[in-house]
Amino acid sequence: MINLKITGFGHYLPSKIETSDELSKKINKPSDWIISKTGVQERRISDIDVDLMGAKAAKIALDGKVPDLILNASGVGKQVIPDTSVFIQKELGFEGIPSFSIHATCLSFLVALHTAANFISQSTYKKILIVSSDRGTRGRNFNEPESAALLGDAAAAILVEPALENEDSGILDFSMKTWPKGSHLTEVRGGGTNLHPHDKETKFDDNLFSMNGPMIYKMARKTVYNQIQEDLKNNNLKIDDINLLVPHQASGLAVKAYSKFGGFKEDRVVNIIDKTGNCVAASLPLALSLAYSDNRFKKGDIIYFIGTGAGLSVASCLFRY
Amino acid sequence: MINLKITGFGHYLPSKIETSDELSKKINKPSDWIISKTGVQERRISDIDVDLMGAKAAKIALDGKVPDLILNASGVGKQVIPDTSVFIQKELGFEGIPSFSIHATCLSFLVALHTAANFISQSTYKKILIVSSDRGTRGRNFNEPESAALLGDAAAAILVEPALENEDSGILDFSMKTWPKGSHLTEVRGGGTNLHPHDKETKFDDNLFSMNGPMIYKMARKTVYNQIQEDLKNNNLKIDDINLLVPHQASGLAVKAYSKFGGFKEDRVVNIIDKTGNCVAASLPLALSLAYSDNRFKKGDIIYFIGTGAGLSVASCLFRY
Repeated sequence: MINLKITGFGHYLPSKIETSDELSKKINKPSDWIISKTGVQERRISDIDVDLMGAKAAKIALDGKVPDLILNASGVGKQVIPDTSVFIQKELGFEGIPSFSIHATCLSFLVALHTAANFISQSTYKKILIVSSDRGTRGRNFNEPESAALLGDAAAAILVEPALENEDSGILDFSMKTWPKGSHLTEVRGGGTNLHPHDKETKFDDNLFSMNGPMIYKMARKTVYNQIQEDLKNNNLKIDDINLLVPHQASGLAVKAYSKFGGFKEDRVVNIIDKTGNCVAASLPLALSLAYSDNRFKKGDIIYFIGTGAGLSVASCLFRY
Repeated sequence: MINLKITGFGHYLPSKIETSDELSKKINKPSDWIISKTGVQERRISDIDVDLMGAKAAKIALDGKVPDLILNASGVGKQVIPDTSVFIQKELGFEGIPSFSIHATCLSFLVALHTAANFISQSTYKKILIVSSDRGTRGRNFNEPESAALLGDAAAAILVEPALENEDSGILDFSMKTWPKGSHLTEVRGGGTNLHPHDKETKFDDNLFSMNGPMIYKMARKTVYNQIQEDLKNNNLKIDDINLLVPHQASGLAVKAYSKFGGFKEDRVVNIIDKTGNCVAASLPLALSLAYSDNRFKKGDIIYFIGTGAGLSVASCLFRY
């Protein structure tokens, strides 16, 4: 086990709600199609940028503490350079604290949590702020109704610190696998060196979110199922030993699959997608922070984080709280 | 000390050279102005994208080995989603190996090296491929002659593995500090959620590299000087104990400052900027890989990595090879 504890949770949900009725007109699909296809009844729309959203979540997680490292673990940055961690730090009013970004699309938070655990084990850093903030609605393609209906805006943050000797808290296991054969299933093709905004060949849609939902679901269901079996087996755990499953909120179908095919009881799976949509990297820590607010886990519980990200990647983490 | 050793080095320099004479016409400045202002006589221009460049460097570093983690540590990505590590892995022909990106602009390689060391210490991963690949010439603003003349394209990669018990190799010290008060000194403001390519308020220049050279130099010279003194003092080292200084190639002036003001002998400072320019995150591992090719260090030597990145950040790493 890699010892560490989560000592702060915070999230920010923009106040502006977009209902399926409102979205319906933009994507030319009835609202019951949206709800049945994506499981998303409403999503939040932010009118402030990712750094300010992230800082709002971070302030709650920090509760006055000062971190010694800031990890931005978001899916899409504020701008190309500098990385978003700098702007989050700026908004928090700190100077001289190291900050950088970890990018693994929707899995950025899980990868950052695992990286933070490795830093804490080495006593490299002792108070690590992890912030995931995404404004997916900025990249919606209204001509691709399914993905446009999925995305929502949110930010969430946690503070992690070393666990005391008598505290049995930390990462029991972590796993990540990436299959580049799925690299074109979820994309924003523009914004980098490949299809630069100034290139003549860059099309309007290249700067918008694009995903092949059915293909991802097909590829992900199998790999996620295998990952669950592997994690349980490697850690001598039965499915009932997991107190709470906190999955990435990829789609209504994907979250429901954990109980329908994965064998988890529905009341042990955090499912927030109906009210928030898929908030890219912020989905997973948002689900965690909301579960914390709702007292859905207690000291000693085993929390199982799992999800998929563009790549296609699958990552999972068994965490004793 | 965090034990690890570098077991492979590789770099890729595009074959196409742009001389100062050729650039001169594009930025409307004489070639002697370019050379005296930036120290860059020529730079490489890549006609393949960052993932393919990175994979070319990686294949040399891997030399047939298969990594168990791929870290993309570049300054600017191929596209917004997925992160570039996936495309590097794809080009290398691997499936199922975890990969993600670390983004700290020009310091991405140093942060990735330090992160890899923490992973290796925990036996989390045992063969980590770090790849930095940047195509800065894609974002040159010809109306900003100084920064346009600085940038060049390159990729470099290393493989890191645990050091054996009798091998005294690894990271002696690492430090990073970020000062967001310098966040607007080096920017590509577009490409993210702030100034999206479709926004009416996004200007042409927002998608190009912009830097305030004199202000950065002023801020960086002082902070870098202080960092050097701190590193030497904390590790009981004299300046002559450093066998090789491998700095980020920020500008000709910045690299020369290590000997002019920092007290390092000129022949112990790797200076490649005249032939390659500032290759963003690839500059530092490129300088390392070229020094390796030139037999400029041997087992047991202390290599001192140091540099600045957009943020403004300063990072340094004392490494026993």
